[in-house]
Parts: sequence; structure tokens; C-alpha cells
Amino acid sequence: MKIVVDAMGSDKRPAPDVQGAVDAANAYGVEIVLVGDEARVRAELARLPDVPARISVLHAAQEIEMREHPARAVKEKKDSSMVVGIEQVKRGAADAFVSMGNTGAALAASVLYLQRIPGVHRPALGVLFPTAQGPCLLIDVGANTDCKPEWLEQFAIMGESYVRAVLELPQPRVALLANGEEESKGNQAVQAAHALLKQRAQTTGLNFVGNVEGKDIPARLADVIVADGFVGNIALKTAEGISKMLNDLIRSEIKSSPLTAVGGALAMPAFNKVKKILDYTEYGGAPLLGVNGVVIIGHGRSNEVAVKNAIRVAKRSVESNILETIRRGVTPSA
Amino acid sequence: MKIVVDAMGSDKRPAPDVQGAVDAANAYGVEIVLVGDEARVRAELARLPDVPARISVLHAAQEIEMREHPARAVKEKKDSSMVVGIEQVKRGAADAFVSMGNTGAALAASVLYLQRIPGVHRPALGVLFPTAQGPCLLIDVGANTDCKPEWLEQFAIMGESYVRAVLELPQPRVALLANGEEESKGNQAVQAAHALLKQRAQTTGLNFVGNVEGKDIPARLADVIVADGFVGNIALKTAEGISKMLNDLIRSEIKSSPLTAVGGALAMPAFNKVKKILDYTEYGGAPLLGVNGVVIIGHGRSNEVAVKNAIRVAKRSVESNILETIRRGVTPSA
Repeated sequence: MKIVVDAMGSDKRPAPDVQGAVDAANAYGVEIVLVGDEARVRAELARLPDVPARISVLHAAQEIEMREHPARAVKEKKDSSMVVGIEQVKRGAADAFVSMGNTGAALAASVLYLQRIPGVHRPALGVLFPTAQGPCLLIDVGANTDCKPEWLEQFAIMGESYVRAVLELPQPRVALLANGEEESKGNQAVQAAHALLKQRAQTTGLNFVGNVEGKDIPARLADVIVADGFVGNIALKTAEGISKMLNDLIRSEIKSSPLTAVGGALAMPAFNKVKKILDYTEYGGAPLLGVNGVVIIGHGRSNEVAVKNAIRVAKRSVESNILETIRRGVTPSA
Repeated sequence: MKIVVDAMGSDKRPAPDVQGAVDAANAYGVEIVLVGDEARVRAELARLPDVPARISVLHAAQEIEMREHPARAVKEKKDSSMVVGIEQVKRGAADAFVSMGNTGAALAASVLYLQRIPGVHRPALGVLFPTAQGPCLLIDVGANTDCKPEWLEQFAIMGESYVRAVLELPQPRVALLANGEEESKGNQAVQAAHALLKQRAQTTGLNFVGNVEGKDIPARLADVIVADGFVGNIALKTAEGISKMLNDLIRSEIKSSPLTAVGGALAMPAFNKVKKILDYTEYGGAPLLGVNGVVIIGHGRSNEVAVKNAIRVAKRSVESNILETIRRGVTPSA
């Protein structure tokens, strides 16, 4: 198996990207192509011990910055690490593409070069949302804003395939994100998608559990939670914001007196454990589902552990033949 | 000023409702009518010292339960504390209605009996969202799911009036909740509302600051954050769920070893401080804006402090003549 890794993806590129790729090559035995500025990538590789022969470098003269307009950047920077990397997958020279770079650009380049799996209405971006009971997949978190009910239905199918493959859950619970549990809740698109998914659950093995509310995401009342990209993005970002606010508040209040500071120091292992439980780096990035290739996009803030885990997830996606599973899922049965 | 308080609203009714009403009458000098089962309300009053003469009781034989279907309950239970209380406001016998009961029923009864302020497309439910920098108003959090751009524009106007009156902010920052800060972000309704609000900011004094993301709610990048009721509800519930998950996780990890337990005990004042900063009971319930009467709806879990604060907010809303402010805001200028 050969995985292309964007060496110019993360905010601190290329160090975490290269280090994570080397660690993944050693840990998982996959071949890795690092795509990016060859001189910088080779300089980074030269610093590392244990670089296996499975690592190769493919030069790309340009890089897409985080702040660039996605579609424009993809169109104008044909020699960027993002475009060159995705082209490798398109040509069949590699099995998957992994990048910690500009999410919108990865999305645009994937749709442009890899195109959709036949039958897919719209590709969607999923994210593994960490909870105390393990991760659940929230899909879509930003690829599509106004969604038709059939698109939401397909997000459910694609998300279910992914969770089945990557989290190895045999019968994932699939739910729609709504403003109440009752079937009558939801906006018009969600209500219509509810009917489609209920129907689908009767005709296929889909384990559709109905609607869940925002508070049910961290309570992990479902393994796959479906929303349009506008709503999913707001839920995800609100969750991130609340975690940050609570973390900052607790830290600053603990520091505010000597006694609580001592208490905080003693309680530190507990805080670290909580941090570890909710650590996004464990979950290896966000899959872009529905395009004709395995694409995993990580956070710009990713460290080498996050990069390594994204590569693990890409490998698992390829092994489980997720593209074929999605293709079958979205093909209307005869 | 006379405020009607639903004595049969909270989960532990009538104790917190009655106690909160008595405390508010003493603290703010308002007349209060407690509406509910007269015998139970009088029994509760008999237990309290310092019940001022400003407190009266109005009998209502029925009560609406939390789990009842809102519209049906309002239609069928004409002698419920909710309906009888709102009718007092309708008749002009009281200035405001406060309830910790079924939100949907309060909404339905308010729209049915009080009707809309002329010019208002749809009443909306706001909620003061606690952050480290003080509360911001999220509106709508569930009254309307699929919203037209003009409705969102009015939510902004109504929310701005409320925040100006109750939080006494002279120039509240008004934002749309979206999946990115850029003007090009948002679903179709939000993009269209963005154009309307931008226009409005040019012609009136509205301080429209553009789009904010989910993470910007707890960061309080705006004082009034506008969303349709589907999205606002999901953001609010996700925030509640994340707070609960983090709280539960930290507690359980701290208890997991003797050393961290000691640390946790020493750090307790810091945790309590954080809890107090984010205490929803301080903010006095959710205003229903756009109906022709002041209606404040609190959480079923409210204690007497939350009830007292909801009455304070109702008083402040009446004093500031919020209905007239909203009426003027939604009237197209000649």
C-alpha cells in the first residue's frame, strides 16, 4: 500500500508531517510518498534516525497557505503539494492522500481531480468527535451548507461505512442531529431525511436510531451523527469553543490562589487523563467521503502523532475497501 | 408594576416558584400574582417568613406538565396556570408573565393569546448564554426551524432591543451565527440575512459585526448572536452537553486516586468560582420576543434564585418598555 502525505500541510510544516510519516511507515509498514519542497523535506528527513526505504519524496514547488481561497488556490497552484499529491491518487500511483493543510483546498482539489464516486450526490467531511465513551462521527462538518434530504441520507450511508471500517463497529447507530428527539422535530430537510432513513432502515440493515440533540453528541447516543455542513460545523465549533472556555477558566481560577494552585498541581494527573481522553490527535483527522479516492484531512495544528494517526486511518480505510462499500451503499438497489 | 408568576412551572413546583416570587417581591418592590393551585400555593406561602402584601394568589385548577404536547395542552387546558397567567397579561391586568414550565406551551399560549407585535414575522426565543466575559444573547433557540432571511433580520432587531434593555449595553454587537467569518459563508438564509443586516446597519444605528462561528459564542465576540431556532437549539444543547461531559469527566478522574482527590478538594474553590461564572440561574430565563407582552421562560430545573432573577429580568423588560422598542424596530420606516 502506498500513501501520499502532504509534507507542506501543517502549520509547522514540514517537521510534524515528515516525522509523522516516518513514524507511520515504521509502525504500519506502509509505503509513503512525501510530497512537497524536496530540499526542505530531505533536510527534515536527514535529521531523523530510522528513516525506512519505504519513504520516498516527490517534489512540488508550490504550497497552499491556510488563508488562501480554496477553489482559487487549487486552480492557480497546479504544482502545489496538495494538487500534486491528489493527482498521484487519481492516476492510481497511490492508494490514499493525507494532508494537514487547508481543508477547503483539499476538498476542492479532491472533488476536481478525483471526482465523485458514481451515485454520490455530494462528498461530505466527517470528523471523529471525542467523547468520554469514545469517538463518534459527525458528518458533514462544512463541505455542504444547504442540503437536500437525499444528500443527508447519503451522508448517513457514507458515515456508517466509515465508522464500520475505521472504528470497527459492526452495527453503528446512525442518527440525525435535530432540535429534539421526536420524529416531528427538525427543519424541513431533516424531517424529510428522517423519513428516507426510516425507510432505508426497513429495507437494509441500517441501524437508524432517529433524532439526537446537541447534548447527545458528547453523550454518544449515536456512532454516526448526520447534519448538513452548516449545522455540523456550528456544533463542532461550539463544542471546541466551550472546551476551550472551560479549560481556560479552570486554569485561571486555579492559579488565582496559592491553595487552589497546590490543589491543581496535585490534581494534574486527572486533568491530563481528561485531556488524553478528549485528544483529537488520537483520531487521525477528518475523512472526506464520497470522492473517488481515500482522502484524510487533519487539523493545521496537528503534531506528528496526529499525522501518524491520520496515516493509520487512511491505511485502515484502504484495507477495508471503503470506496467500494460507499459505492455499493449509494447505488440504488435493482 | 404587576408581574404574574406561574406557581406550577418548575420541576419542583410550587416551592422554588413561590420562594423566588417572594424573594423578588421583597428585593424589587414589584407586585406579584402567583397563579396556580390556590391551596398548594397558600400552603407554600404559609411556610415562608416575610411574605409581603404585594403577593397575591390567583387560582388555576390545571397545570401543564413538561411532557405534554405544547399546542394541544394549551388548547385543552384553558384553566392551567400557564393559560390563566398569560390571559392576565392579555387583559392588561398584569405587565409580564414568568414561568419555569413547558417552553413550547408558553410559546404556544403566548402566540395564541398575546399575539404578535404588529410587524413581527415570527416571535423568537432568546437565551442568555453564560461566558467568561459575561452573557450574550443567542436568538432563536427553538421557536422557529426553517427561517426566512427577514425573520432572522427581525431576530437581530428584537435581540438587540432586549440586550440593550436588560444587559444595559448601549451599543450591542450583533452577529449572525455561521460556518465561517467571511461574508461568503453561511447557508442561503444566513447569506441573505447578512445582506439585509448590512443594509440595516447603514441606515440605522445597528452595530452589525458580521458572521461569528460556534467557537465565538463562548468567546463572546458578539452580544447578540442570531440563528434560526433549529441551529440555535443545536448550538445551545451542544454547549450544555460539552459542559456536562467535561464536568463529569473531571469529577470522575479526580476521584480516581487519593492524591488527585486531595488536589481536587483543595482546588474546589476554583471549581466553584467557574461554576458561578457560568451559572445560568444568574441570568433569569429566556425571553420570548415578538409577542405583545413581556414573557420570560425559565428552565424546569430552576431553583428560587433562577425564579427571582427571571422576575428581575421581567421587571427590567417592562421598565425599559421593550415592547415599544421592538414595535418601533420592526416597523418599516416611512
